[in-house]
Amino acid sequence: MNADRPIGVFDSGVGGLTVVRALMERLPREAIVYFGDTARVPYGIKSVATIEHFAAQITDFLLGQNVKMLIVACNTMAAVAGDVIRAHAGAIPVIDVIEAGARAAVANPDHGGIGVIGTPTTINSNAYARRIHELDPSARVHSQACPLFVPLVEEGWLDHPVTRMTAQEYLRPVLAEDIGSLVLGCTHYPLLKPLLKDVIGPGVRLVDSASTTAQLAAESLQAMGLASSRAGPPAYRYVVTDIPLRFQTIGERFLGRSLGKVERLDW
Amino acid sequence: MNADRPIGVFDSGVGGLTVVRALMERLPREAIVYFGDTARVPYGIKSVATIEHFAAQITDFLLGQNVKMLIVACNTMAAVAGDVIRAHAGAIPVIDVIEAGARAAVANPDHGGIGVIGTPTTINSNAYARRIHELDPSARVHSQACPLFVPLVEEGWLDHPVTRMTAQEYLRPVLAEDIGSLVLGCTHYPLLKPLLKDVIGPGVRLVDSASTTAQLAAESLQAMGLASSRAGPPAYRYVVTDIPLRFQTIGERFLGRSLGKVERLDW
Repeated sequence: MNADRPIGVFDSGVGGLTVVRALMERLPREAIVYFGDTARVPYGIKSVATIEHFAAQITDFLLGQNVKMLIVACNTMAAVAGDVIRAHAGAIPVIDVIEAGARAAVANPDHGGIGVIGTPTTINSNAYARRIHELDPSARVHSQACPLFVPLVEEGWLDHPVTRMTAQEYLRPVLAEDIGSLVLGCTHYPLLKPLLKDVIGPGVRLVDSASTTAQLAAESLQAMGLASSRAGPPAYRYVVTDIPLRFQTIGERFLGRSLGKVERLDW
Repeated sequence: MNADRPIGVFDSGVGGLTVVRALMERLPREAIVYFGDTARVPYGIKSVATIEHFAAQITDFLLGQNVKMLIVACNTMAAVAGDVIRAHAGAIPVIDVIEAGARAAVANPDHGGIGVIGTPTTINSNAYARRIHELDPSARVHSQACPLFVPLVEEGWLDHPVTRMTAQEYLRPVLAEDIGSLVLGCTHYPLLKPLLKDVIGPGVRLVDSASTTAQLAAESLQAMGLASSRAGPPAYRYVVTDIPLRFQTIGERFLGRSLGKVERLDW
């Protein structure tokens, strides 16, 4: 397989761009095709059958772009449709944010209690707790849904008293459990890192799903001999199913740089 | 036309149930069929062509239920697809939340400045300001998008310090404009009425889109001789395209009573 083929990253919307950002930093030679299903976001309120159908459709699209690796940068799809995606992907390796976050959470042998925060769908799916327990059956996992974090991030209130008060309320029960780390189980949450660090204090380690996914991708590419050695800046493509209001603004906040041209795919 | 036929009320999701609640209170003899397109919510981030297509599809479905009146209990659809809905409805009268809210806002001849709050899509559509200016060209309209109000209502934080602080921040520029009334341009917002009344103070009149729509429906049915005179409790039906997590809880909070059986339509 040609190691210069792009990595395919996909999400139901814009949140996966935090994973793209981490990939750009960790793997600066890799070309990336990002797919955001912005016409059908949010997935979290849809049925499992619908999410599986959408996930298979996106997987097929990215395979058609000749990707060498697939990264599921959407917690809902990772929680619900991981098997369908892997079945469609065949020999192409698949990495997802839940796998990356769970591994990072148990990586330290003295990890202590593990807090997990995410959207209601991700938390109710119990996917993080299940995967963490597979990796370390003795782990104590304390989960908490934080439904307002996504709208607060999209509003841009990243360091706002309202966001701080909301975080204090959501995290109170988790912090009461003597945790050693807190997994950010949603691709929107890395934008809240400075505020969340303040709220949880220095004794708790933040596990950022975006950077842990980039790290896992780097290790996997290396192990499979698929890391690109190309010189010069790699190509980045952004494909979305709709270009909604504020997409550019929010997308660039997530990506930490200009998005450039965004392609719209009409499904 | 048989006056005992039901009223058809539709929304992209669950918010329109505040309008149903107001109809039940104002028109206790009327049967109602509610349609919530919960599989495809939120509409606000979709393109105009898509919203028009969905609105036409729902209109056809409700006409097939033999309704005597259609109520568009969704600000996005009212702002974007009103013409399409009226064209499909033919002779069946159509009432929408924007028409009702705009009329109520200018009803008092000394109405003063008019504040309008809503989702970003509704505010950016400028539909309230346009309709208010048609009714009273001299009206001063001050609009403000409040993106966090819908998630705060769905979280159930109706009387929470976070919601109060958010409202104070959103309403500051509007209240600085010396307004006499504030139009709640989103069907979620009536649940925030007590808190918003506190924040805006006694000098500003709240115009609640749910109760103004029920009032306009009552006047229209009366004028057309279509008011039901049936004795006994009327039939209420709730048809949705998906039954997502927390639908029952949130729906009953909006409706202010038990939802009973919810029918799921598979499109």
